[in-house]
Amino acid sequence: MVEVMVIGATGVVGQQFLVALADHPWFHVAKLVASPRSAGKRYVDAIRDRATGSIRWYCDEPLPEQFREIVVESFREELLDDVDLVFTAVESDVAREIEPKIAEKKPVISTASAFRYEEDVPLIIPGVNHDHAPLIERQRQNRGWKGFIAPIPNCTTTGLAISLKPIMDAFGLKIVLMTSLQALSGAGRSPGVIGLDILDNVIPYIPKEEEKVQKETLKILGNYAGDHVKPARFKVSCTCTRVNVRDGHTECVFLSTEKKATVDEVKKVLREFRGCSDMGLPSSPKRMIVVHEDPFRPQPRLDRNTEDGMATVVGRVREDPALENGIKYVLLSHNTKMGAAKGAVLLAELLYKEGYIC
Amino acid sequence: MVEVMVIGATGVVGQQFLVALADHPWFHVAKLVASPRSAGKRYVDAIRDRATGSIRWYCDEPLPEQFREIVVESFREELLDDVDLVFTAVESDVAREIEPKIAEKKPVISTASAFRYEEDVPLIIPGVNHDHAPLIERQRQNRGWKGFIAPIPNCTTTGLAISLKPIMDAFGLKIVLMTSLQALSGAGRSPGVIGLDILDNVIPYIPKEEEKVQKETLKILGNYAGDHVKPARFKVSCTCTRVNVRDGHTECVFLSTEKKATVDEVKKVLREFRGCSDMGLPSSPKRMIVVHEDPFRPQPRLDRNTEDGMATVVGRVREDPALENGIKYVLLSHNTKMGAAKGAVLLAELLYKEGYIC
Amino acid sequence: MVEVMVIGATGVVGQQFLVALADHPWFHVAKLVASPRSAGKRYVDAIRDRATGSIRWYCDEPLPEQFREIVVESFREELLDDVDLVFTAVESDVAREIEPKIAEKKPVISTASAFRYEEDVPLIIPGVNHDHAPLIERQRQNRGWKGFIAPIPNCTTTGLAISLKPIMDAFGLKIVLMTSLQALSGAGRSPGVIGLDILDNVIPYIPKEEEKVQKETLKILGNYAGDHVKPARFKVSCTCTRVNVRDGHTECVFLSTEKKATVDEVKKVLREFRGCSDMGLPSSPKRMIVVHEDPFRPQPRLDRNTEDGMATVVGRVREDPALENGIKYVLLSHNTKMGAAKGAVLLAELLYKEGYIC
Amino acid sequence: MVEVMVIGATGVVGQQFLVALADHPWFHVAKLVASPRSAGKRYVDAIRDRATGSIRWYCDEPLPEQFREIVVESFREELLDDVDLVFTAVESDVAREIEPKIAEKKPVISTASAFRYEEDVPLIIPGVNHDHAPLIERQRQNRGWKGFIAPIPNCTTTGLAISLKPIMDAFGLKIVLMTSLQALSGAGRSPGVIGLDILDNVIPYIPKEEEKVQKETLKILGNYAGDHVKPARFKVSCTCTRVNVRDGHTECVFLSTEKKATVDEVKKVLREFRGCSDMGLPSSPKRMIVVHEDPFRPQPRLDRNTEDGMATVVGRVREDPALENGIKYVLLSHNTKMGAAKGAVLLAELLYKEGYIC
Repeated sequence: MVEVMVIGATGVVGQQFLVALADHPWFHVAKLVASPRSAGKRYVDAIRDRATGSIRWYCDEPLPEQFREIVVESFREELLDDVDLVFTAVESDVAREIEPKIAEKKPVISTASAFRYEEDVPLIIPGVNHDHAPLIERQRQNRGWKGFIAPIPNCTTTGLAISLKPIMDAFGLKIVLMTSLQALSGAGRSPGVIGLDILDNVIPYIPKEEEKVQKETLKILGNYAGDHVKPARFKVSCTCTRVNVRDGHTECVFLSTEKKATVDEVKKVLREFRGCSDMGLPSSPKRMIVVHEDPFRPQPRLDRNTEDGMATVVGRVREDPALENGIKYVLLSHNTKMGAAKGAVLLAELLYKEGYIC
Repeated sequence: MVEVMVIGATGVVGQQFLVALADHPWFHVAKLVASPRSAGKRYVDAIRDRATGSIRWYCDEPLPEQFREIVVESFREELLDDVDLVFTAVESDVAREIEPKIAEKKPVISTASAFRYEEDVPLIIPGVNHDHAPLIERQRQNRGWKGFIAPIPNCTTTGLAISLKPIMDAFGLKIVLMTSLQALSGAGRSPGVIGLDILDNVIPYIPKEEEKVQKETLKILGNYAGDHVKPARFKVSCTCTRVNVRDGHTECVFLSTEKKATVDEVKKVLREFRGCSDMGLPSSPKRMIVVHEDPFRPQPRLDRNTEDGMATVVGRVREDPALENGIKYVLLSHNTKMGAAKGAVLLAELLYKEGYIC
Repeated sequence: MVEVMVIGATGVVGQQFLVALADHPWFHVAKLVASPRSAGKRYVDAIRDRATGSIRWYCDEPLPEQFREIVVESFREELLDDVDLVFTAVESDVAREIEPKIAEKKPVISTASAFRYEEDVPLIIPGVNHDHAPLIERQRQNRGWKGFIAPIPNCTTTGLAISLKPIMDAFGLKIVLMTSLQALSGAGRSPGVIGLDILDNVIPYIPKEEEKVQKETLKILGNYAGDHVKPARFKVSCTCTRVNVRDGHTECVFLSTEKKATVDEVKKVLREFRGCSDMGLPSSPKRMIVVHEDPFRPQPRLDRNTEDGMATVVGRVREDPALENGIKYVLLSHNTKMGAAKGAVLLAELLYKEGYIC
Repeated sequence: MVEVMVIGATGVVGQQFLVALADHPWFHVAKLVASPRSAGKRYVDAIRDRATGSIRWYCDEPLPEQFREIVVESFREELLDDVDLVFTAVESDVAREIEPKIAEKKPVISTASAFRYEEDVPLIIPGVNHDHAPLIERQRQNRGWKGFIAPIPNCTTTGLAISLKPIMDAFGLKIVLMTSLQALSGAGRSPGVIGLDILDNVIPYIPKEEEKVQKETLKILGNYAGDHVKPARFKVSCTCTRVNVRDGHTECVFLSTEKKATVDEVKKVLREFRGCSDMGLPSSPKRMIVVHEDPFRPQPRLDRNTEDGMATVVGRVREDPALENGIKYVLLSHNTKMGAAKGAVLLAELLYKEGYIC
């Protein structure tokens, strides 16, 4: 078993890591790390509200029994000796400081954006661009690290990049325009989105989100070029909004392909896209992309849990009357499953399988 | 005073007509028409639920006192003798049957889609394309009518067409792509959208909506050509979704102009667009378009009532990195005010002022 | 295997029956009955929307494969020859007409209210008042039926009666006052509650609900007296409201016991109440009542699926300062699981086990 | 004009004070006080978000022009020389520290709970228990203050106490049991209720709320006894829950009167209750209590703005079958209007009129 540490284990994303790692066939959670306030407490007490005694557990799945009694620790570099792999679930500013220190010794799979845009850091979605993984070696050389940092993309990028991949491969891409209708859970809980602000409302702006999605999509779908990734050459633009939905980001995509493609051809390549489904990764969806014919799908509440939240669900594939070789569709991607902790575990599985870990 | 009749007066849109017509300086409600079930009852009793005695009044504004006691009638052609103008708030299939009969004698301002796409029927937004009004004369000649049918556009078209007009005039338009996040009230109440379906959800499809918006936008922004309107020549595509918002359609627009325009230039033409603000129409907004600098605006709950729901509120005007001469922005338009009954009253005001009525 | 028929199989409650009966160890679904419009179609086609091709399946669980291809039939009395037991999921007026005809030949487990208040009809919750079951024999004699009608209670009654039972048995009850905050799914879909009406709102009235709950609670907790049930003698009053929650009725209870009981004593009897947990019924919860110490529980979204929606979840057990021997608490009961189809299957399991069926 | 200071002017309640005080006929806002971070800025800049430039204004009404340019100050005792009256909109711990210092010199009308339960502090609702006002003199003597502290009740208490007053006066009260369904705005914004927690949910607990309501109701409806208020002698118990509603607390009341009263008699005393309607107070509702016959009312969204949020709206008055001389009803009270800043202004109007201020 690969011994793993989760940093930020008591937060929302940390909790999702525990669910994703419970009874994992390859990874064994050896260390739970959180802020000094939690250190020394059993996990179940570390997430207990002092005033009311309530347990602050935010996943739909129950807190796995195996983690209840583990004593949470503060981060110390010595702890790294006991683990083979570190998952981080911390804010970007903390990540910027702590992740390089860890990477000196051990691999880091990160949910933070801190290092996503650095030249020697790949941004990998298994089944989409795992051929970028060798950049990790370059990163190690550049930085003199034994470990490395491998971040996952922003949760809004993930579904978009997955759905674009088979279309790009088959027909080429010229232009991609996307409007997102994002779920509340993407904003976290500190304080996240206030109920008062989202009730009977849409918030048409998510700071920095659009820039992240635009940049990351091109990096993921770009070409590995030895010492960096050459971004894909199509144009991307998006508008990111927040709607009153708990989980599941809906994205309305308009695109223009290089080569004319019919609606049926597009559906076919989407349906046939295997992604990482055949790679033997335990957290992989069986179907990377699920395509609906029902025009009322995908809907967040009906479709977000498809393949335990690891599939990208696509519907309303239509010809676009405004763009040259235009296609439009709607996709749904579970922002706290494939788009966060479980997606990070999937990435770790890939890197482990390919020999980058241990 | 112009004597008016409201057909479908007890329904949701009919009620909005009553609010828009209460104490109107030019129009006097002479006749309230509804289904035979309501006929012969005082208005306040016609909208009363028999089982519980509840009054089924759906506007935020209270039921204007002046209409409470008016006796509702069934439609009969003789009633037309007493009025100068008819507003219809009925389903499209009913409109198709009843409106031509009325138009033989009297002008009809319609909220239904039944006649929107006919060649000799203009689709007018005051201040945007009132120069299409002369098509009404052609319609009268073609059909041998004393009256005419003038429909208002779909509520999702209205804000889009208004915001595009000054941009088109200043810079030309090549491509327009729009994703809407539409309010529940747009779906009406029979049965409209079930609470169970929209709670914690987005519905990514509204039957026929996208086709309507695409077609109507081009007709409104087209050129009056004597016996018909020549549609505008840019390309339009949209994806229409339903979100859990009561009133106010949010629309995320991406567009490509003929002539390069900076963000500041676009904001300037939007802000300077007077629309029908100076035409002396009682229901006109003072500001046709309101442009926000705050990136978190427009929001439906905060902005839908701007200028009593008659303004188009625009925000997030940015350069679009994917389209040639690309601009993107978000707009908000009140679907049951400017987009429905009060917008129809505004149109009637224009046509009255220009001599088409009485 | 007991061969069963589901009447109203295509409706929402009918769909929940299919989920509750899929792979059932004792019951085999032999016949699916629905309106003539559905007759002759495969189940999956009978629930397909003609206009859009969408499948109208409303459960969280997927449509069980085993039912997809079954051909739906119209009700005919001859069909009864092939089954041992009938579940009905129809409106009360239909139930009133059809259930007696079926009961002449076969047992009927009904979700409708039509026969709940008749003297020779027991209203049984397994584990609460299964000692009322012998009234079924009297019903058969009275009416000359081979079968019988056994309805389940209103979904709002169920959790209340379950939580009251152990308190009544241990301490006696004098007064019960309850305010419910009911979920949308309790109102069904035809049309149920309109999104426009419940967004940012509470509806303080549910027609006939309060009377049902008051009457049924006393009947369930009453004494079997040979030829009828003598209602319990405590007083009950309730106020039933609708809130913007999908599933799970929250009920705030204030009560006065005959014998003084401490909060700890009340929690103890609630926790120790086994209900039908030890009766070997496949659909029974393992814990009939779950009691939380966390004052923020129960919450519908966090707790409704406890024991697959078959447990009654109680929290906030406190002394009541206003009533003599006062206790107050909050309970949550899943209205479409224990409170509807799966609760009906549980009742059928009890009656089968006790020899009333086959 | 009475010169007034608002402390906490930039917060949500402070903003509501500005709306309530704009163009007030008696009170002139002379000083706006907020935290040192805001000091020295124009009001409109003090509420501007630094990162995005957004103005953080949370009322439905626009920011009154007259306050935009006022320079916000930090609290210093010298500022008190320029004002006659102070409104505080601060947290309870801040109130406990600052309000006594102010009261040494000037009257304080407080929205905080800090001093509500002290013996020489009256808890006054104009029109309900203004006869408690003389306790202010005692407070001054006891504490050697020139000013005084007069807090308003908790927002959940207000509507309950108002609706109980005429019933108590006419029939006497023995027992009151109340379940509240409270709006999000009652929880404020720091952080208030997270959208993730209330979507598709009810939260059955609001810390300390029930104790406040129980204690305050008895104090308000008690008798002024020279040097303190003797609490009313009936019993009160409540359960307070949070629901997904923006503004407007719904309360379901069950009560037992001393003297038997019919439903019509109760409605009559509620309807005839004038409260402070005839006292010539500018912020007073014209109708203190509005009683609906429609069983579907009151609803928060339809009724919260009755009399600009200053009326208590009552519906569903019925006989209660469980309590002796039992009556039950549902009430709605606007928690941020009558229940907060505007209610505080109303109290100040009363105290000014009665000579306690200036």
